Amino acid sequence: MKAPWQPSSPWPTVAVVGVGLIGGSVGLAAKARGVARRVIGIGRSRASLDEAVARGAVDEATTDLARGVAEADLVVVAAGVAAIPALLERADAAARPGTLLTDAGSTKGSIVAGWERRRRGRRCRFVGAHPIAGSHRKGPVAADAGLFAGRVTVVTPATRTPAHDAQQVAGFWTALGATVVAMKPAAHDRVLGATSHVPHLLAAALAAATPAKALRFTAGGWRDSTRIAAGDPGMWADILLDNATEVTLGLARVLRVARRMQRALEAGDRRTLVEILARAKERRDALGS
Amino acid sequence: MKAPWQPSSPWPTVAVVGVGLIGGSVGLAAKARGVARRVIGIGRSRASLDEAVARGAVDEATTDLARGVAEADLVVVAAGVAAIPALLERADAAARPGTLLTDAGSTKGSIVAGWERRRRGRRCRFVGAHPIAGSHRKGPVAADAGLFAGRVTVVTPATRTPAHDAQQVAGFWTALGATVVAMKPAAHDRVLGATSHVPHLLAAALAAATPAKALRFTAGGWRDSTRIAAGDPGMWADILLDNATEVTLGLARVLRVARRMQRALEAGDRRTLVEILARAKERRDALGS
Repeated sequence: MKAPWQPSSPWPTVAVVGVGLIGGSVGLAAKARGVARRVIGIGRSRASLDEAVARGAVDEATTDLARGVAEADLVVVAAGVAAIPALLERADAAARPGTLLTDAGSTKGSIVAGWERRRRGRRCRFVGAHPIAGSHRKGPVAADAGLFAGRVTVVTPATRTPAHDAQQVAGFWTALGATVVAMKPAAHDRVLGATSHVPHLLAAALAAATPAKALRFTAGGWRDSTRIAAGDPGMWADILLDNATEVTLGLARVLRVARRMQRALEAGDRRTLVEILARAKERRDALGS
Repeated sequence: MKAPWQPSSPWPTVAVVGVGLIGGSVGLAAKARGVARRVIGIGRSRASLDEAVARGAVDEATTDLARGVAEADLVVVAAGVAAIPALLERADAAARPGTLLTDAGSTKGSIVAGWERRRRGRRCRFVGAHPIAGSHRKGPVAADAGLFAGRVTVVTPATRTPAHDAQQVAGFWTALGATVVAMKPAAHDRVLGATSHVPHLLAAALAAATPAKALRFTAGGWRDSTRIAAGDPGMWADILLDNATEVTLGLARVLRVARRMQRALEAGDRRTLVEILARAKERRDALGS
């Protein structure tokens, strides 16, 4: 596989399992960019499905996964990481043989390994993906046709994934506007541990450790630093648990720096403090506001 | 002292030492709200002073502190915390006897103690203050007449500060639009350690610990969590050093929670994780986005 990917040509029917922020945005982007002729939304909550239809994110909606994926050429599983493996199993059992499956989970190692473990018995084809375009907002009401535009989506083919399958899935996300990068599942989890899961854990620890009566003395700093702590607790517990090893390693890296800063504080060592703060600023400035 | 404070009546001449984000905003707010008839800006950089004049934040500007404060009725020292004690000394020596001084430093314990240590020899009156309204932006170009509106400003009278002095300073910040809260200097430093200084240290540790090549795999979470790490390294080193004891205690509180989360991860204890994440979310949601 080699970037840049050719955007894949229109898919007659795309099924989206889960019509929340990500699934709803897949539907909106697919419709807006002519990537899919027809989008079928599959979900458990009738209210969310109705909202997704009302917003034009999906053309049809059903709570019956087997029926929803039966006519699909491509199935996108956009659910919490703990639910994805079972949903892939069900899609594999119900879709037409050869149907392409992808997902949008925040972790990739266990999801891809779960699929690969029974690769020989599979009816469909699967290539994992992770659009790095979250938000603390949720539900189809937060869906946005431009959510993936200009953002990175990582696709994570396994060793035995045919190059053509990986190319097709990469092409689908590219067609939604994403900048697609291919990585091994383990590499994905290591990098996202550092850039997403550890920041979430720290934001939550900071928010939980701040006394409630101190909240009125917060300003932009605390507010920005803890924004992601407003994310869904169950969803994030599952992500952290699924990537526990990398989160533990990544957290240790951050805490090493924090302890160096603390030792510098105790020693009155301004030079070391300024050095670390300047390195942090340099890295942050590289990203823009 | 008892809130709500009476906004103090117009001050004929206010001198602002330091015309950056805070000093410039004091000038703009004082002019916009008719709190001062005349604002004199004092600074070291001719370019910043010219910018402050051009923006209408100050009416006159000088690099000569003694000359700048000579006709002032109120002097606001808006500089980095490490510079404030010496600037207060110089203002005390040069202003008319009885002139009221206040500051806008992010720490209060050492600044107030430094003043009080030689209280008997003072010519002027001083009541410390901290408008909790920072930004990672800096300079008079970032100044904003509305910076203090609806935000908390803490005033920190010492035990021997006359109530009338505290009332006047509280009234000044109230007149700029702030919600004024009186606290002991030590209480201020304890609370702000938790709500501002520890978050800064963590944001910097996170930014510094993230490998540069991982930056393209960051999204809103990392971006928000590390925004304050773009602040000025020297200014923040001084704040952290000046409040080292409280920062160390506050950091330990956050790290205790982080370690509990890590142990839960290692034990596969989803329940504890969800509990902590839910507490964090509750605290964060209490603040709005």
